[in-house]
Amino acid sequence: MRRLYHHGLSPAARKVRVALAEKRLDYEAVIEETWIRNESFLAMNPEGEVPVLVEADGLTITDGWAICEYLEEVYPEPSLLGGPAAMRAEVRRLVAWFDRKFNREVTEPLVREKLLKRVISGGAPDSRQIRAGRANVHTHLRYISWLIDRRRWLAGDMLTYADITAACHLSLIDYAGDVPWEDHPQAKEWYALVKSRPSFRPLLTETISPIRPPRHYADLDF
Amino acid sequence: MRRLYHHGLSPAARKVRVALAEKRLDYEAVIEETWIRNESFLAMNPEGEVPVLVEADGLTITDGWAICEYLEEVYPEPSLLGGPAAMRAEVRRLVAWFDRKFNREVTEPLVREKLLKRVISGGAPDSRQIRAGRANVHTHLRYISWLIDRRRWLAGDMLTYADITAACHLSLIDYAGDVPWEDHPQAKEWYALVKSRPSFRPLLTETISPIRPPRHYADLDF
Repeated sequence: MRRLYHHGLSPAARKVRVALAEKRLDYEAVIEETWIRNESFLAMNPEGEVPVLVEADGLTITDGWAICEYLEEVYPEPSLLGGPAAMRAEVRRLVAWFDRKFNREVTEPLVREKLLKRVISGGAPDSRQIRAGRANVHTHLRYISWLIDRRRWLAGDMLTYADITAACHLSLIDYAGDVPWEDHPQAKEWYALVKSRPSFRPLLTETISPIRPPRHYADLDF
Repeated sequence: MRRLYHHGLSPAARKVRVALAEKRLDYEAVIEETWIRNESFLAMNPEGEVPVLVEADGLTITDGWAICEYLEEVYPEPSLLGGPAAMRAEVRRLVAWFDRKFNREVTEPLVREKLLKRVISGGAPDSRQIRAGRANVHTHLRYISWLIDRRRWLAGDMLTYADITAACHLSLIDYAGDVPWEDHPQAKEWYALVKSRPSFRPLLTETISPIRPPRHYADLDF
């Protein structure tokens, strides 16, 4: 059976789980805590990161975005990249925006300082990093609102990897209690739509031990 | 006519230039120095990064990797992603390796401290960062040698985006004079093959004012 190595703190692994569910592909989930050095996992992926997907025939795909493109090529229905090349380019641009810019400015500081350090008992959080992440998230929520003013979903009129990528990053920030939803009602409305997808539910009902998410984290009506 | 916004210090822009040349697509090159705030460029790409590709019909594609995937979809010959899905996944994995891991560990510290700071007169280089970049490059050259021991090119038996991505990052480190080629003869042999492609030549004959590259930078026999 197909296997996915993942952990709850990886936005890329979250994205692949949602993609597998949208494409109705079954898999066995294996939790790999990449902060603990595991030689057999490193042999499979020398970068030492999740997600890693192992197909039933043994084919091993590493790197979150490479897995997403692979799933789209091999299991094209339903499409998560959209139709013509121009739309696909827009989806990939937004995926890169969230995986690089949002990740650097928001996800990395907040997830490291507020979640990872507690999971690994890694010392006191750096309050400067937390403040920076909290300030930066506004720009991105404004950008989401700007896009949603013009389109039904982030990249056009259908749900794509752009929405899934953005929502997976935001779900982690929301787990940390740091998304100022009330200031960005349009972004909130879009996120409520993503949250209500059955593919997204499993992410919302899991806890990242020993941290409890805020009450609204799993609520569809938040 | 097709236009490409780029500058010499961007590994992603270098990659797109090589890809356009491999696919024999003409373009007008526009140098955009992204460290100078240019409102009309920011309107085109709010991330403020090169490369940006504008097709003759006005279609604008931003993000280096989104451009590469777009070129492969619209101008598939010659392919730079390879054949079956498993090989394409391997190409994308290696592209992500160099664009994320190599970039963070080697390109960013060395390009910023040794090249960018001189270009923008941005103060004294941080020697700790330079030492870190110089130490890290060995791991990656060993990884290239390991791959080339098993394959003709990095991802398989043909030149792909994996080779182009790796070589574009290395070309910048080589410009700074910081690739220890003599310690890694197999990686050097592979780089000599990339260097000899006509698509790569223009990168090697340009200078990034006011910095002169070391003598061997453009030599095919280095």
